[in-house]
Amino acid sequence: MDTPTKVILDEREMPRQWYNILADLPHGLRPPLHPATGKPINAADLAAIFPENLIEQEVSQQRWIDIPEPVLEALWLYRPSPLVRARRLEQALGTPAKIYYKNEGVSPAGSHKPNTALPQAYYNKVFGTRRLTTETGAGQWGCALAFACQQFGLECKVYMVRISFDQKPFRKLMMQTWGASCVPSPSMDTRTGREILAKAPDTPGSLGIAISEAVEDAVQTPQTKYALGSVLNHVMLHQTVIGLEAQKQMAKISAYPDVVVACAGGGSNFCGIALPYVRDKIHGKAVQIIAVEPTACPTMTRAPFVYDFGDTAKTTPLLPMHSLGHGFMPAPVHAGGLRYHGMAPIVSQLLIDKLIEARAYPQLKCYAAAMLWCRTEGFIPAPETSHAIAVAIDEAQRAKEEGKEKTILLCWSGHGLMDLKGYEAYMSGKLTDYDLPQEDIDRALAELRDYPKP
Amino acid sequence: MDTPTKVILDEREMPRQWYNILADLPHGLRPPLHPATGKPINAADLAAIFPENLIEQEVSQQRWIDIPEPVLEALWLYRPSPLVRARRLEQALGTPAKIYYKNEGVSPAGSHKPNTALPQAYYNKVFGTRRLTTETGAGQWGCALAFACQQFGLECKVYMVRISFDQKPFRKLMMQTWGASCVPSPSMDTRTGREILAKAPDTPGSLGIAISEAVEDAVQTPQTKYALGSVLNHVMLHQTVIGLEAQKQMAKISAYPDVVVACAGGGSNFCGIALPYVRDKIHGKAVQIIAVEPTACPTMTRAPFVYDFGDTAKTTPLLPMHSLGHGFMPAPVHAGGLRYHGMAPIVSQLLIDKLIEARAYPQLKCYAAAMLWCRTEGFIPAPETSHAIAVAIDEAQRAKEEGKEKTILLCWSGHGLMDLKGYEAYMSGKLTDYDLPQEDIDRALAELRDYPKP
Repeated sequence: MDTPTKVILDEREMPRQWYNILADLPHGLRPPLHPATGKPINAADLAAIFPENLIEQEVSQQRWIDIPEPVLEALWLYRPSPLVRARRLEQALGTPAKIYYKNEGVSPAGSHKPNTALPQAYYNKVFGTRRLTTETGAGQWGCALAFACQQFGLECKVYMVRISFDQKPFRKLMMQTWGASCVPSPSMDTRTGREILAKAPDTPGSLGIAISEAVEDAVQTPQTKYALGSVLNHVMLHQTVIGLEAQKQMAKISAYPDVVVACAGGGSNFCGIALPYVRDKIHGKAVQIIAVEPTACPTMTRAPFVYDFGDTAKTTPLLPMHSLGHGFMPAPVHAGGLRYHGMAPIVSQLLIDKLIEARAYPQLKCYAAAMLWCRTEGFIPAPETSHAIAVAIDEAQRAKEEGKEKTILLCWSGHGLMDLKGYEAYMSGKLTDYDLPQEDIDRALAELRDYPKP
Repeated sequence: MDTPTKVILDEREMPRQWYNILADLPHGLRPPLHPATGKPINAADLAAIFPENLIEQEVSQQRWIDIPEPVLEALWLYRPSPLVRARRLEQALGTPAKIYYKNEGVSPAGSHKPNTALPQAYYNKVFGTRRLTTETGAGQWGCALAFACQQFGLECKVYMVRISFDQKPFRKLMMQTWGASCVPSPSMDTRTGREILAKAPDTPGSLGIAISEAVEDAVQTPQTKYALGSVLNHVMLHQTVIGLEAQKQMAKISAYPDVVVACAGGGSNFCGIALPYVRDKIHGKAVQIIAVEPTACPTMTRAPFVYDFGDTAKTTPLLPMHSLGHGFMPAPVHAGGLRYHGMAPIVSQLLIDKLIEARAYPQLKCYAAAMLWCRTEGFIPAPETSHAIAVAIDEAQRAKEEGKEKTILLCWSGHGLMDLKGYEAYMSGKLTDYDLPQEDIDRALAELRDYPKP
């Protein structure tokens, strides 16, 4: 054995600061706009749903931001996460490539999501918030926020996309175990939800709808704020602990990745592992950084860069992002966390700046990759994570064809123990891929005609 | 912060040998007997269901046994496991006690069970076995063996106790993901199963019945052996990596436990953490070692030390153990892994030798402890594990009353992500405790009247 299979950091070696890419973006970020005025929004516009300290962080240009001590101590419940060499997968592929994965499935919630849920709960607590609302797709984010609110003594209400609520019934129980309440979205608890249910009682729901409900609830309930698990700058900031740890871990074994890959729904686990490497790339380092999405929701690969709402009911500011349109309803693929119509402004800008690249993968291919993973590396990945695995396998196979000793780093964003119905459907041959006609995208985008262009 | 929250071992620091308590037991172990002759069984009697190399290990008196390199490499997929200080639980209790837990929930299967599944699959592979059969209660063991068989290229068939099969549907999917087949027990696939179903079609099943089915299958199918997840000496041997790691980890922070606690169904996670400490105790070290079981299945606290069968259909040798009788049908508590009528001969002997002590806890108290754990330490424990947590909390509270700085070490045997229906029942107030009248025990034991006494 040349190097160990696992590289573990002592908690005292954990990063003490988050990395803020806004300090280094070559062309900056376009500002969010107020939909009524078309002018850049100001802090006051956000104050209805976010606490001041997080709004400051959202727009901060400071390169390194200290992780508060109470957040650090809460992160220690499961961090630093292991960096593991996927030797058995390499052997099964017969590839000369080295595949490393950063295992973010080790958190109590089962994914990378607590990395931002904990600081968000903390900053809200410090600000004086008593209750947080949020949306969740596959349930990873809802669980993470429930867990984090419990840690910092906040109430928590989660609006969960109905299709995932039905597919993953145990997610609700996890949230309840951590003291949160969870309802399927659209729900009867908000005006938005009631209106949508009146028109489409059988709708599978969407992240856009669930966000609208959570925002409406936050605005209308005293001492309540809203927490978002992805898309926003401060979320990407908090997630950078993933990549910063990975850099330390790989340095310990004198390795550096040729390829970094993660799946991207809103962009948070992707940014988590990728942003520290984007910084290296800006400074001249050669590293290929790949974001992968489902073909059923091809935000990065088929959608234009536009100003669009973050939610279906148009209650958020207009965000500069790759978007399929806030009315886009993705097919019911099992990777619920990747069923979002938009993409983080930071990810969108990095695509435009050609600092990263994007790929779209169909779900059958991803499940095949996940099965190979389970049968070699053992751990059952979330359907979202399987997208990153599929790319890593393709890259490892390309390395074999080219006879190259490539080093691949993938973000193993979460385990799939709550997502086994997808595996059941795959194993029984009932799973299908979805074709997405261009007309569906054009139709959803037509609604954006009258809004500003970035 | 005086010491770190987590103590992590590098994989190169992992123990390279298992510890065999048989070399140190002050009064040895009574031998298993052949039920027909009443004489000690010999290796040939076991050869129908176990491979020779494991039979040798079962009776070995060698104190330290090398872990084969391929087993070590497979264990590295998830080991060494973290030793974590439960600071938030300590704070919630306001106790001066230090509570450490050894997190065995980090394995792909979610519990300590792969620690023996991997070597058992390996030794069978080396011996020439092509297929393994087994039983499983809560599903932890079935998942572990499915995962291990996949790693070493064996087929796997799991008979899962029907009540758990129904309560934990996703366990079956995990086993299938790792390529195993899983049926509810009693099943129509064996003569034993068919006979029981004919008499009691609605039976919830039991570990004893499932063992009978798996043994029958192994005996009657070519190149098929049987694997047991607990009770036997070689299983306890393989699990000692837990305690050996814990000793190294605690030594790193100059700590030593005053109390070691683990739950005991068949005895495997208990022996895993406890045996290396029992060795210390034999050598004069002061350490209190506690095994905890459910009041619904009080093998250690209310059952006599007898010779009994390991299974319901009386196909195994007679084992010297604390037993409620092989016909005992425990109440349907959620801790399926603790619903076994007997107890490992090693654990039984240690009780007689007064090297360890036993307690029985009702399930409502254990769920209350589990909820407190979830809301402080975050990770959701398996119902079995909650028993160890409940004892640790009681010991920490006693330390508070006595004003003592006690150090408590508990084996966190597995996570409860596949066991959330129990939490649902608890949170909705539908869970009950079970009374176990002495007559039920007496009735089950009456059947043993004509068998030898130890």
